Amino acid sequence: MLRIALAQVNATVGDLDGNAELIAAWTRRAAARGARVVVFPEMMLTGYPVEDLALRASFVEASIAALHAVAARLGGEGLGGIAVVTGYLDRRADLAPRTGLPAGAPLDAAALLHGGRVVITSAKHHLPNYGVFDEFRYFVPGNTLPVFRLPVAGGESVEVAIAICEDLWQDGGPVAVCARAGAGLLAVPNASPYERGKDDVRLDLCVRRAREAGAALAYANMIGGQDELVFDGDSILVAADGALLARGPQFEEALVVADLDLPPAPPGRGPEEQPVDAGDGSVITIRRVTLPPSEPTGPARAVDTDEEAAEAAGVPEVERPEGAYGSGPFWPRLPDPAEVYAALVTGVRDYVRKNGFRSVILALSGGIDSALTATIAADAIGPSNVHVVLMPSRYSSEHSVTDAEDLVKRQGLHALTIPIASMVDAFTGELTPAGFPETGLPTENLQARVRGVVLMGLSNAGGHLVLTTGNKSELATGYSTLYGDSAGGFGPIKDVPKTLVWELSRWRNAEASRAGATAPIPENSIIKPPSAELAPGQLDTDSLPPYQVLDKLLDDYVEKDMGTAELIAAGHDPALVERVVRLVDAAEYKRRQYPPGPKISQKNFGRDRRLPITNRWREPRPA
Amino acid sequence: MLRIALAQVNATVGDLDGNAELIAAWTRRAAARGARVVVFPEMMLTGYPVEDLALRASFVEASIAALHAVAARLGGEGLGGIAVVTGYLDRRADLAPRTGLPAGAPLDAAALLHGGRVVITSAKHHLPNYGVFDEFRYFVPGNTLPVFRLPVAGGESVEVAIAICEDLWQDGGPVAVCARAGAGLLAVPNASPYERGKDDVRLDLCVRRAREAGAALAYANMIGGQDELVFDGDSILVAADGALLARGPQFEEALVVADLDLPPAPPGRGPEEQPVDAGDGSVITIRRVTLPPSEPTGPARAVDTDEEAAEAAGVPEVERPEGAYGSGPFWPRLPDPAEVYAALVTGVRDYVRKNGFRSVILALSGGIDSALTATIAADAIGPSNVHVVLMPSRYSSEHSVTDAEDLVKRQGLHALTIPIASMVDAFTGELTPAGFPETGLPTENLQARVRGVVLMGLSNAGGHLVLTTGNKSELATGYSTLYGDSAGGFGPIKDVPKTLVWELSRWRNAEASRAGATAPIPENSIIKPPSAELAPGQLDTDSLPPYQVLDKLLDDYVEKDMGTAELIAAGHDPALVERVVRLVDAAEYKRRQYPPGPKISQKNFGRDRRLPITNRWREPRPA
Repeated sequence: MLRIALAQVNATVGDLDGNAELIAAWTRRAAARGARVVVFPEMMLTGYPVEDLALRASFVEASIAALHAVAARLGGEGLGGIAVVTGYLDRRADLAPRTGLPAGAPLDAAALLHGGRVVITSAKHHLPNYGVFDEFRYFVPGNTLPVFRLPVAGGESVEVAIAICEDLWQDGGPVAVCARAGAGLLAVPNASPYERGKDDVRLDLCVRRAREAGAALAYANMIGGQDELVFDGDSILVAADGALLARGPQFEEALVVADLDLPPAPPGRGPEEQPVDAGDGSVITIRRVTLPPSEPTGPARAVDTDEEAAEAAGVPEVERPEGAYGSGPFWPRLPDPAEVYAALVTGVRDYVRKNGFRSVILALSGGIDSALTATIAADAIGPSNVHVVLMPSRYSSEHSVTDAEDLVKRQGLHALTIPIASMVDAFTGELTPAGFPETGLPTENLQARVRGVVLMGLSNAGGHLVLTTGNKSELATGYSTLYGDSAGGFGPIKDVPKTLVWELSRWRNAEASRAGATAPIPENSIIKPPSAELAPGQLDTDSLPPYQVLDKLLDDYVEKDMGTAELIAAGHDPALVERVVRLVDAAEYKRRQYPPGPKISQKNFGRDRRLPITNRWREPRPA
Repeated sequence: MLRIALAQVNATVGDLDGNAELIAAWTRRAAARGARVVVFPEMMLTGYPVEDLALRASFVEASIAALHAVAARLGGEGLGGIAVVTGYLDRRADLAPRTGLPAGAPLDAAALLHGGRVVITSAKHHLPNYGVFDEFRYFVPGNTLPVFRLPVAGGESVEVAIAICEDLWQDGGPVAVCARAGAGLLAVPNASPYERGKDDVRLDLCVRRAREAGAALAYANMIGGQDELVFDGDSILVAADGALLARGPQFEEALVVADLDLPPAPPGRGPEEQPVDAGDGSVITIRRVTLPPSEPTGPARAVDTDEEAAEAAGVPEVERPEGAYGSGPFWPRLPDPAEVYAALVTGVRDYVRKNGFRSVILALSGGIDSALTATIAADAIGPSNVHVVLMPSRYSSEHSVTDAEDLVKRQGLHALTIPIASMVDAFTGELTPAGFPETGLPTENLQARVRGVVLMGLSNAGGHLVLTTGNKSELATGYSTLYGDSAGGFGPIKDVPKTLVWELSRWRNAEASRAGATAPIPENSIIKPPSAELAPGQLDTDSLPPYQVLDKLLDDYVEKDMGTAELIAAGHDPALVERVVRLVDAAEYKRRQYPPGPKISQKNFGRDRRLPITNRWREPRPA
């Protein structure tokens, strides 16, 4: 029996000291729980993704030095007896520079720390280069599979192999080689970003790969926000037969501890180095090491019951999945709206914190987008750190102000009212003689830009991070003003379609009611027809189709990359298809200027959907 | 003897009709010059880079349909007898979707058109995924080398192979296989972006690969601006012994026509399909086709003399490079400042034109950055299409206004003066009670943002594209205001360090003097000390080191990715290194918000240098 711990913790890119501190602290906790092995996420020591930092030699050297320092520190703190598997950044020393080779030949690496030393290292074999991943720019592939032999009770040993994240997602490679190596357990550090519904895909994957490898599989994933990415944790332990043994929480740091029944390693260990056909056109070398016997550093007593284990881990009670066995804890799954909401809150909280801000500021219009954004921010960093600015214009309706004031009161935010008429008039006073029109798009944009300048000014003066309040439907269709409502440091709902904005708002209010608390969002903000209020009587539906219709079309066009013919075949109105496709293609430039925001779908624009700005291609007109 | 034409033309991404028109028009010209083969650039039919358009099935289908249409059109116009090699977008039909495979398995393809038909197609084997290239996201690699046998005079034939762009830059693959195939000529469509000094690298490469392949090499490159990329043309023809036979102009469309002495193909042609070890771990299949004999479609007479050839091509007289032979034309090389300036003018001209604008607008401060930007714009689209706005504040010096007015007069631009005091006062009137300070960064930024709002308003009202005027030294160190001076659609000098701004300005003035024209830039704008003029008596050197010192340091840190220790070892002042490294790392967020601009160096930020925004890594302090 082997007690293993999966440490799903919140690393910060570049914070080598802070991340090393996390490794030490969570290894201590794992040892205290009697674990013999603890698995940390991918690139734990550097954070993920490091992007161009991987190409800077000084950073790679610092990562390697920090790895050796943390190994020595663990040894010095009496934690040398626990086998620590952690991700870090390394490099290959044997590759000459050539065109296209990432400078310095960096590796997305994993190390086994034991006895105060770095015992063996390896690197990710399959490099993802799609969606949010650009790893062919930054890394060279690894070509070894480390297997370490760990003595357990009764004079026996177990064998543990190590693979990294994408190595699970691709056929062939480390999983296939693990099967050949005959290891009893495959430990897998991950930095796998959240996407709606991805937890189901991930579980299926772990089950399938465990069966392929003929080994138990320990999937340790990162949590926390890193710019546009949000890592959800959701660490998973499955047996070699695919049975789910334990599962971590979503969007929370946690130690998932469980006891594994592993087959004893054969008495004669295999060769130290064994090149194997990896089934993907490459050769991977199995590298075997044997750890010396060592006493468990924590309490040796096994966890006796599920209840006891859950209590120790602070795990809420949850029904065990069908077919589950063993002593592993199961945190409850979040239902869909709660899961998305948690991702957004995590994204905002960590962006604010990791960038050194303590407070945010945003424009509160009385509409649902700014209401939800303010609520997410208050849930992320506390209402006392949320500053809102009401900026009524001559076109603002009465309910805009009263609904905004209602929200402020419900949540206890800091509020300021700055009417924009005097600034707008100052601009038109100078610009009208130069031919600036009295109505139309230029004047509408002017109002939005004046608000942007006010917010940025208050941000500069008070040190608050400006949050934008645009949703994905607006962003996709370009229904926003450059340097106006799109001005800001972070866009909490930039990947949230309008219909989901409403759903999340209703859900958040219902949660509050269920808990006997005040609903944070005024009902009127949810039910009134959306309006930018930049012209008299203006409604979103003057310019855009109803959001229920628009969002379905955007999903097919943006996420699924359907062309006009496919969209029409899928049942969308041909005239609408033509109009929306043109809007979306024309909005590319605006989207590139939009600040980052938490990603919850496949394509939230930016790196994971990018059209040339100078692009004359137009989808053919519907026949 | 084979007469070949390299058509270095200006394709536009997505403009299938326009690009097809270019293929037809330039094939007609090549035929009229008696060419038997014409080579167009990579992705000629779609433009380059198509980015996510490659993942849209409807676009790939449209590209394939357009290819067949243009082949048929050439046949119909009596141009079927000329062998046309052109780039386009295709797909592999035999790959099942899987994680990480670009959707639809797109190919960066080349086709041979002849006799009104698409005779054979192939695709780029080596996909670049560094610098400005992200091709692992968009393409799957090709694995064939087409070789076509073309009957020439005297009953003999020659054999021509086709490879694409990066296939030249990597060892092994198509060049190695071309040597095995024994083809006499390797035709290479390219979309190779400009970089300072790249022309020398490119020539060396062509010479080396021609020798390796044992074949003459025809390198046809695109010209023109496409968003941040500028293609410089510089098409090259070398003999199998590496001698340079002809070379096209930089930044101009041109047809480079020359006569090649090629070895006759052996009488028995090789097998139709022949798999060969490509020397890079892959197998490439040689595919042979034979074209039917056909009469040259243009004048059959050979070009007799160098002079005649030059006259026909409109080639300026230029000294032939040492070792050159044959009848090929040589356009003169541009010396360094002229070359960079041409790249910037090309970038602006094509960004304006390809985005459907006819005019630009920019803020003219009297300083050198806006003076150079205005001059580049006037050279690109004509002074009558350049609108400048003078926006003096209470901190503007008298020479700011007079120097700006001087430039307007020298170049005949449209000028407008909008003093910003009334707008600034309107903001401070509302914001001061909310704690907005009377001096310091917030008020400096406020002035820059008011100017940004004025420019954007005039842009919206008049349909002009806003040009930003920030240079690379400012952009690197964050010495600019978000939504202020950084607001705009295109940044002509965003990749130009300040010291190069001065050099280009002096060069442009000297060129004018040499031609007997008025120097476009007031001398005072060049010689006065740089100032943002956002506070009384402010100078750039209050916040930044002298640009001569700064630019050297930025080059080492940004372009060469040196760490602090290396920078100090290279002779930079330790205190300065620490300060500048912190400025550059902290400015990452601003740089992502900056508009595109022509790229002239390895790393002009954005896609080709990208740090995580939430990044705690700081280069170690100097010891």
